[in-house]
Amino acid sequence: MNTVVVGGGVIGLATAWRAALRGITVTVIDPAPASKASHASAGMLPPGHEELLKQEHVLRLCMTSRDLYPSFVAELEEFAPAGFRRDGVLDAAFDEDALQGLERQEALQESLGIRTQRLGPRECSELEPNLAPALGGLLSPDDGSVDPRVLNAALITAIEALGGTVVRRSAVRVGDHTVTLDNGDTVTFDRLVLAAGCWTHQIEGLPEGVIPEIRPVKGQILRLHSDPPVLNVTTRAFSKGSSLYLVPRLGGELVIGSTYEERGYDETVTADGTFGLLARVTEVIPSAGTLRFAEISAGLRPGSPDDLPVIGPTTVPDVYLASGHFRMGVQLAPVTADAMVSYLTDTDPDPVVLPFTPLRFS
Amino acid sequence: MNTVVVGGGVIGLATAWRAALRGITVTVIDPAPASKASHASAGMLPPGHEELLKQEHVLRLCMTSRDLYPSFVAELEEFAPAGFRRDGVLDAAFDEDALQGLERQEALQESLGIRTQRLGPRECSELEPNLAPALGGLLSPDDGSVDPRVLNAALITAIEALGGTVVRRSAVRVGDHTVTLDNGDTVTFDRLVLAAGCWTHQIEGLPEGVIPEIRPVKGQILRLHSDPPVLNVTTRAFSKGSSLYLVPRLGGELVIGSTYEERGYDETVTADGTFGLLARVTEVIPSAGTLRFAEISAGLRPGSPDDLPVIGPTTVPDVYLASGHFRMGVQLAPVTADAMVSYLTDTDPDPVVLPFTPLRFS
Repeated sequence: MNTVVVGGGVIGLATAWRAALRGITVTVIDPAPASKASHASAGMLPPGHEELLKQEHVLRLCMTSRDLYPSFVAELEEFAPAGFRRDGVLDAAFDEDALQGLERQEALQESLGIRTQRLGPRECSELEPNLAPALGGLLSPDDGSVDPRVLNAALITAIEALGGTVVRRSAVRVGDHTVTLDNGDTVTFDRLVLAAGCWTHQIEGLPEGVIPEIRPVKGQILRLHSDPPVLNVTTRAFSKGSSLYLVPRLGGELVIGSTYEERGYDETVTADGTFGLLARVTEVIPSAGTLRFAEISAGLRPGSPDDLPVIGPTTVPDVYLASGHFRMGVQLAPVTADAMVSYLTDTDPDPVVLPFTPLRFS
Repeated sequence: MNTVVVGGGVIGLATAWRAALRGITVTVIDPAPASKASHASAGMLPPGHEELLKQEHVLRLCMTSRDLYPSFVAELEEFAPAGFRRDGVLDAAFDEDALQGLERQEALQESLGIRTQRLGPRECSELEPNLAPALGGLLSPDDGSVDPRVLNAALITAIEALGGTVVRRSAVRVGDHTVTLDNGDTVTFDRLVLAAGCWTHQIEGLPEGVIPEIRPVKGQILRLHSDPPVLNVTTRAFSKGSSLYLVPRLGGELVIGSTYEERGYDETVTADGTFGLLARVTEVIPSAGTLRFAEISAGLRPGSPDDLPVIGPTTVPDVYLASGHFRMGVQLAPVTADAMVSYLTDTDPDPVVLPFTPLRFS
């Protein structure tokens, strides 16, 4: 069994690694693996993304991936460190509306069996002394983050250690069990997984409508640095109807995100994007101004027509899709990869992925 | 005649090049030439720096260097492009105080024979449509800028083309006509020029007091990018008692400076430094928010005890100083280099440099 995966972001790499673990011969095709959306990503692994959790089938998908993460990482770390931390996510409320939001979130998390601890203002500042005074907080001690740059590097290492191949070229066309590359070479496949984020539908050769349009949603993201780290745990700061996420790394990096911009395939980092993130982080961490400015970058999140992931077989035999993960690619990599491997090995996938079939757009 | 120059910033490189042109065998010693203060620098070449021009001897030094620049560049461009533009400097006033300041500046420039053109609000916006509405401006059409990164690269090319050597090591000690490097090697010299900016006085082996302390004054500087360039000419924006300089490059880069921070040898770029420059440029160029964020960097300006350059022989025979140029290293490179070459060839330097003798601190 020979599987080609087009796209070397976190979804494609996770799928290829899990497939290789099962003895499948894998080839990942990407002109610059691990360099796009998941390279920019903060890698937050919260109990869930507040808005999306209102949808029952998304909730189940997220919870399944959350449950899979520890064993996914443990198996991956037999090859290389994965940059996973499960030492807590703090949701901090900075106004009354946000505080009420935390109450709803607490109730939801309790109903899901997610360990949750309510914090008062003083407990928030004891946990995070560098945070501005919060009205209250919610700590989810079993959640955390993963560093997508470390994770993707580990996935590439693992794929290659298992005999898989990463081809640093663009895939331009799908034929009958072949993919044509930008240099004219062809690669044959038994099964094909298209996981090229917002570039997925640009591959030629498939009948119209087989791949829904996956539009790019730009996110600019800021990295500051301090030694020691300015925050202890992944933090979401809620105020004025929006949230800012702050993901600390043990090495001192603080990742701050992010913007949401619908501007086509524009990956430009702008003065405004940088300014806005700096303004917001300084509100939430008053001492942030003294931190080293380490990086501003941008990624294009893959947004499907209904903003939900697209996971499963297409109408073309042996051609599968794993794309459209929008803000949740890193979070949903384990559940997506395992579902894809089920399809590739002709076994039933976890039913949580069934609502995300590509066929819903047909 | 064999001259060693310690320091490969714009002052050391310009001195070495001018010496090599005169047939002197030159060796520049610097662990990373062209990477420090003059790499960060915007390279503005205005008629003068407002405050410093109040001092008659500084004024004469600046005017002499200004007169030398075109021929300095023309001779250098026989080796490589120098990135020089003499297409105007616009001083724009955004409040009444600044407008009065322009009147004083106009009177000064006219007394010096600097071509000067007074602009009304409409003429300012005709010249620079992307600038916020100004109350008035002053255009100095014969002034401009140089790109220090291009200039320094050209200087290194020219030095090497003339048989000079650039040694990428640190100089740690001066002995009797020898310099010891950080790898233990020694380099002999007939004459020695110390031009290592705020690191100049750290070289060991000379009697105490021979080199005044040259303190680091940190400047953070922002680079945005647009295509086409957002400004046509080098612009200084005056408001609220301070000025912001904006130096456009033909390739689309806009250099915006800068901060002044006395923090020792700290070259960290910070969130605050970045935020402050972004806030100020957005006030002056309302559309700047859409520009690409290209770079934030920091340099350490060399500040002597009286904040003025230190140019000339020391009390130690055959040891010369060219340092302490503070904000004016790029601007004063031609006059400094020519003066140093006069000393190295035992001829009288232009008397404009005499007030800047190192002996004033003895």
